[in-house]
Amino acid sequence: MSSAKFISIEGGEGGGKTTNLELMKEILSQNNIPFIVTREPGGTPLAEELRALLLENRDEKVNPVAELLMMFAARAQHVETVIKPALAAGKWVISDRFTDASFAYQGGGRNIDWAMIESLEALAIKSFKPDKTFLFDLDPVTGMKRAASRSEYDRFENEQMDFFKKVRQAYHRRMDEQPSRFILIDASKPLDEVKLQVKQSLELIISSAINEQKKEFSS
Amino acid sequence: MSSAKFISIEGGEGGGKTTNLELMKEILSQNNIPFIVTREPGGTPLAEELRALLLENRDEKVNPVAELLMMFAARAQHVETVIKPALAAGKWVISDRFTDASFAYQGGGRNIDWAMIESLEALAIKSFKPDKTFLFDLDPVTGMKRAASRSEYDRFENEQMDFFKKVRQAYHRRMDEQPSRFILIDASKPLDEVKLQVKQSLELIISSAINEQKKEFSS
Repeated sequence: MSSAKFISIEGGEGGGKTTNLELMKEILSQNNIPFIVTREPGGTPLAEELRALLLENRDEKVNPVAELLMMFAARAQHVETVIKPALAAGKWVISDRFTDASFAYQGGGRNIDWAMIESLEALAIKSFKPDKTFLFDLDPVTGMKRAASRSEYDRFENEQMDFFKKVRQAYHRRMDEQPSRFILIDASKPLDEVKLQVKQSLELIISSAINEQKKEFSS
Repeated sequence: MSSAKFISIEGGEGGGKTTNLELMKEILSQNNIPFIVTREPGGTPLAEELRALLLENRDEKVNPVAELLMMFAARAQHVETVIKPALAAGKWVISDRFTDASFAYQGGGRNIDWAMIESLEALAIKSFKPDKTFLFDLDPVTGMKRAASRSEYDRFENEQMDFFKKVRQAYHRRMDEQPSRFILIDASKPLDEVKLQVKQSLELIISSAINEQKKEFSS
């Protein structure tokens, strides 16, 4: 049995997900750990096409439940054709967002019933979860100011500040429900401090995975 | 309250759905009934884009649950943005396929758990159903011979005969579960006989809708 870990990265805009994802790749490489990096929505050709449909600015008003179902369609495809096969082959998986993002954006942001998302999570992916989730937590006012200095805008980024506050609250609710899975990163701190915390947390995950594997070999 | 009816047309390949859909349009027009004709998967710009993703021949193997979720995403969008608004405006709706097709193709054909599809039906569209469903029933061997004379092929039509036999069985199961909604059309009969049955059945639906409306006005 492989001790490869599935790690997701979550959080709102401007929280430093991208920078820290690069750091995590370096650390895994330095430890000679095979890994893949993927993202949601997306991660497979079909799921990326669904992502493009989701992020497209369109005249047609997208029904929130339809949006949620597209997210989980992309996720089911991603889990079955990319994530599970990689883990089974001993490769670690880092995903830029996973199911927690549906709870945050569709549940928190768009007020879709929490229990409905849980039902869909069970139905679509049998509630398959990351081993660890790094939540880059930041006040959305600060986050949006940082993001505004980039020129990346999509439909989600055009939403209102209230939306992002609800997204953050929903991430916290998810973390409160499953505390052992989450690593809370205070993304308002200076980048060097944030990177240090990420490094230390990831190295801890790596060392306990190595210990797990040693136990398996010796038993 | 509007007495506009929602009618779906179901059945396998070569069962005469297209020809009889034309007949139904003629009959509604002759009776001065406002209506729209739509189809699934599809019926809105977004849902049509999902349809294109679903029917595309691709190297990537599509996970059956992902396929089912895309179908219901398209359906949720279709119901909320097209079907319900049309009915509310007093327009009849004829849809070439609806949820029964998911039970037939994904449930029967691809062996997805029946109860899972029912859960998704409840979650995605609150089990919103047609008032009447015309099932054009035909042995798939006969159906495929008829369809083969056309040059229309897509991913579904390339599937095996066994698949279509299971599709037909699943349509029958659905009809057995909700008998009052279904109108069974024996599509192996000569086209003139089939058309006569469709005409008589639709005229019956129209006359009872008119009676309903009269009752409402007089009460």
